[in-house]
Formats: sequence, C-alpha cells, structure tokens
Amino acid sequence: MAPKFVRSTIQKMAGYAPGEQPAPGTRIIKLNTNENPFPPSPKVMEAIAKVPGEHLRRYPDPMSRSFCAAAGKVLGFKPDWIITGNGSDDVLAFALLTFCAPGDVLAYPDPTYSLYPVLAGINDVSVKPVPWEDNWRLPIEGLLASGAKAIFLANPNAPTGTLVEPGVIGDLASRFDGAVLVDEAYADFAEANCLELVRRHENVIVCRTLSKAYSLAGLRFGFAVAQPQVIAEMNKVKDSYPCDAISIAAATAAIEDQEYARKTWEHVKAQRSRLADELTKMGWQVIPSHTNFLFAMPPGGRGKECYEFLKSRGVLVRHFDKPGQRDKVRISIGTTEENDVLLKLLREWK
Amino acid sequence: MAPKFVRSTIQKMAGYAPGEQPAPGTRIIKLNTNENPFPPSPKVMEAIAKVPGEHLRRYPDPMSRSFCAAAGKVLGFKPDWIITGNGSDDVLAFALLTFCAPGDVLAYPDPTYSLYPVLAGINDVSVKPVPWEDNWRLPIEGLLASGAKAIFLANPNAPTGTLVEPGVIGDLASRFDGAVLVDEAYADFAEANCLELVRRHENVIVCRTLSKAYSLAGLRFGFAVAQPQVIAEMNKVKDSYPCDAISIAAATAAIEDQEYARKTWEHVKAQRSRLADELTKMGWQVIPSHTNFLFAMPPGGRGKECYEFLKSRGVLVRHFDKPGQRDKVRISIGTTEENDVLLKLLREWK
Repeated sequence: MAPKFVRSTIQKMAGYAPGEQPAPGTRIIKLNTNENPFPPSPKVMEAIAKVPGEHLRRYPDPMSRSFCAAAGKVLGFKPDWIITGNGSDDVLAFALLTFCAPGDVLAYPDPTYSLYPVLAGINDVSVKPVPWEDNWRLPIEGLLASGAKAIFLANPNAPTGTLVEPGVIGDLASRFDGAVLVDEAYADFAEANCLELVRRHENVIVCRTLSKAYSLAGLRFGFAVAQPQVIAEMNKVKDSYPCDAISIAAATAAIEDQEYARKTWEHVKAQRSRLADELTKMGWQVIPSHTNFLFAMPPGGRGKECYEFLKSRGVLVRHFDKPGQRDKVRISIGTTEENDVLLKLLREWK
Repeated sequence: MAPKFVRSTIQKMAGYAPGEQPAPGTRIIKLNTNENPFPPSPKVMEAIAKVPGEHLRRYPDPMSRSFCAAAGKVLGFKPDWIITGNGSDDVLAFALLTFCAPGDVLAYPDPTYSLYPVLAGINDVSVKPVPWEDNWRLPIEGLLASGAKAIFLANPNAPTGTLVEPGVIGDLASRFDGAVLVDEAYADFAEANCLELVRRHENVIVCRTLSKAYSLAGLRFGFAVAQPQVIAEMNKVKDSYPCDAISIAAATAAIEDQEYARKTWEHVKAQRSRLADELTKMGWQVIPSHTNFLFAMPPGGRGKECYEFLKSRGVLVRHFDKPGQRDKVRISIGTTEENDVLLKLLREWK
C-alpha cells in the first residue's frame, strides 16, 4: 500500500509504461520503440570523446547555446527562438506547466502519445481527449469546444503515423486563445512540418527530439521552437540545467551533420514503402505512415497474437491493449536486414 | 509582455537565477557555484569513452539499474531503495510533486537553497519558510506548526554550510505526518548524514547529487534513497528516461571509485579549515562549515563590495542580495593554488 504521506493523485496513478527495453547485448530485433535503425553520426561520437573532464566538473550551460545556434542555423531561426530539454518528454512537461494551471484542461486528439494524460495527471490538469474524425482528420470543432487552455498535437501522430496538414493546424491556432503545442517527434520522416507556423502564430510551439531522426534516444535531448517571448516564459519553468555538457556537445554535432541524418531518413522512408507494400500484399490493413513506424492490422485483427508470435521468434514490436488499437501492432522501421527477418517471419505466421 | 496564453502564475514569476557560469576557457577562478575543485575520476572518463553508439541509439535504462546497484553497494542499501534523476534538482522537483498537491504547503527552514520556493511556485504549492533558531538550530516547533505536507531540509544547509544532527531530524520525522526530504547535496563533506534514518522512518527521503562530491556538476546526476514503497510512488512521477546512457555509465564509474572521491573530500576539508582560519585572522566572521564552501562576513559587512572587488580581479564568489545574507559572501573551496590567490587578494583588499 502506498504510504499515506504520498499525494492521493499519485497513489491512484499507474504511471507511464515505457516500451520494453531489453538489456543492451540481448539478441533481439527491436522494432518496438521507434529508434532509428542506424547508429548516431560518427561526428557525434567524436564530439563526445572531445568533452574534457573540466566541462563535467563545472555546471553546464543552462541555455545550451551552442546547440541553439546550430539548430537555429539548420532550421532558419535565431537562437532565442529555441529552448532545450532533457528529451522532448521533458520539454512537454515544462510546456504543460507553462500553459496550464492545476484545474485547467489540456485537449488532444485521441488516440495519441500516451504520455500526455500522464503528464496532465501529475500536475492536476484535466484532460479532454477528442476523437479523431474519419480518415484521421483533425477534430477542430471538438478541440475548440473543449474549454482547453492548451492543445497538444502529435504531428505526425503516434501510434497512427498519420499527418495533419500544417495549414489546418494554422487554422486551429488562429481560432484558439490558448497554446497549440505541435509535437513533431517524427517530423523529419514526413513531407511537411509546422515550423513556419511559429513565425506567424505566437501561440504555436513546435517540439522536436533527437531521439528518432538523429539516432540519439539514449542521449535524452529535445527542444522547442517558439517566439522569443514564449521561450522566455518556458525558460522560467524548465530545470536550471536541463541538459548536460556531453549531451549538449553531442546534440550540436548531430544536428550539424544533416547529410548523415538525411541519409538515414531516406533509408527509413524507402523501407517504410517496402514494408507497407509487402504487408498489404499479405492482407494487412496498413495506415499510410509519415513516420518511422507502421501502425497496421494483421489479417483477422489478431494484433496481440502477432505481437506474441514475433516476440517468441526474437522480434519485438509494440502492442497497445486499448480499444481501437488492440487489433493492430506498431512496427518501427528497421534496417533492410531486420525488415527481411520480420517479413519472413510474418509469411510463416499462421 | 508575457503572452496572454501563458499561465498567470508563471507570468508573475521571476524564475530561478543560476550562479554566473563563465564560458569554459575563460580565465577566471570560479568559486561561486560549489563545484569540486578537482576533475572527475579518470575512471569516469574511461567509462564515457567506452559507451558505444548503440547505447545512444536505443532508449536508456529507465531505472538506471547499474548505478542503483553500485550506489547501493557503497551506501549499504538494496537497489530498490534508490531512484535517480537528471541532477538532484530534478529529484527535488519530482519529489515535491509526489508529496504535495497544488494548494498544499511545503515548509523549510529559512534561509536555505533558493530553488525550493521556485519549484513550489511552479506547482502552485504554497511555501512556509520558518526562520532558523539561534546558532542555526532546527526550528522543529515552527516546522511542525506550519501545516505542511512536506518539509525540505538541506543538510548541511546552503548558503550557511551548517549541519543539523541526524538525531534531531529523526525526532522531527517521528513527530511529522508528511514527508521529510533531507537534501544532502553536501553531505560527503560533513561528518554525519541521515541515511540511517531512512531505514527507521518511512517518511524520510535522502537526496544526493554527484555534482559536488564527485566533480560531475556538468553531468546532471542525482538520486534519492528511501524505502522501496516510497521509491515506487516517486517512480510514477519521474520522467520516463530521466538519465541518459552516458550519464548512467559515468555516474556508476564515479560512485564506484570511492578512493578517488574521498581524496578530493579530504583536500576540501583541509583547505576549508585553512581558509576559515586565515579569514578569521583577517577579521572575518566565518560560520563553521560542513560543506565545500564558506559563508562568511568580511569586516564591516561589506559583502557586495568584496564580491565586486574579487570579480574585478578574476575571482568569482557568490553574493546573495537578501536580508541577512547581503553582508556576507559564499566562497567555494578551491584548489590550494586557487585559495592562495583568493587569500592574497583579500589581504590586499581595502
């Protein structure tokens, strides 16, 4: 039983369940948490090796200025339009606290990233999940009618992999008084993103991560792009030193090496097409994906059995035991060889 | 002006002001943010160099198990008595959310670490600062009468450097229904700590950092020790992956190398005595310190002038412009050579 001095909200909560993380070295093909199948850029490893002990002894730069300058150059923003955090989950957490007080409402289309209601619950913020419209169209009217102070919108969305056109999100932002946070964890695998909206809409905040597109899930580095007066408010809420000296150096090297990163994105997109085609041929229903994963229904909607079959053969995919999701599996796009193994197994699966 | 969609609590807040952080490479003697004057253990640097790209590509261990095992062995606790965070500031933040709901009261003796009211403010938790009693005795009755759900107690305290005996804190915990978080950021420089209290008191949580005692302020790694049923609740509130793969490896190597760390502590304690003696001879009032810094009043209470004089000569100490503090400066203990320069300058100061 939880100790009585623990806040009752927390006692009642289940907490967020991260995807299974087998110990490094385990012989498994891991397609369950949307990591990039390629290692980080060699320049990242070089940057890490060069960090002197003196930079560990001292406190790091509270503002990650080297990263903000590099990311700003790549994305076309001045550094004061950027704020960094310990992974984009951390950025989401301090963004929520910047825009929602206890008792306020956070709205989001449903289903989406399952962390949002956990973050809201921890902070006594109520949630209003608004079901996606047919064909994963944004439920604008439902979101506007939710009474929310902020809207979180994963775009492309997880676990569906679908994309809302930036113009539609611009319309939402124009008609909404609160903050619209666009969580672009997967945007580098898509053909469109909302960065340009940030210039025109004070209330649009775009959140990014280096976990997927830059092969750095193990580094914990995320950032947000917003107008400087918004960044200044988020800065009051973030941890004093959210990013460590090594992760700042590594993240800076990663975002500077666009050539390397783009090659991995092109591979992922090509393999995504291949997997989607092959699965469709096998009778799967595959939702068109703009991310580095597929959300797809095997024949007969046997999502859980598929997950268990693959796990028993050493391939880990993700299964969500929720209404509307339990008939599907979510498969991260692996290397060509990993995808070969996956397809071979799925052909054998009865 | 802050955008209107920002939560009003945040608009009104100033945010936490970290100590000045001159860019690495600046020629300055930095005695203002209580870093250890020695570099991290060579074993830390070796551990960092050995982290393969594959560990960065994948998500890190959400529970930092290698660190918890190593720290548990050093401190005499099973791993499930330990939880890690992105610096002890992060641990303080998720502890506060575990024990205090919006509207609850957090109490602490005053003055203390200036982050506590900032964390409370962000979370709509009220604060009740209770003045220290004479000679920095713990204001037990005031804390018990505060109506608090949790008490945060920096021990040894900052910025004073003073220590409350563990027995006194045990008495407080016995008489208090809420959580007593003992922030032991500086405990490795003291002769006593509260780890044993954790075994006897379910409501005592001890928080530690690797920033000072292990020369790793730039790495952001902190942890808490509490009974497993308390750790389980805190685990629901922490970030899914608070510590990155490199920091887990580095922190594990650091806490395993007790021999190296202890040498740095012995140096700091010896230099602390020397500095306190020399300053006292020069007419300063020095509060006996159990930390790696001195909080001391120069002759005439000219704290700000002293800070500015030293800064103009390339030595950075910390000055707090607050009642009861502005007549003093806080000086981190440096290397023998840094302390030589400091003392020479202070002898020249008129």
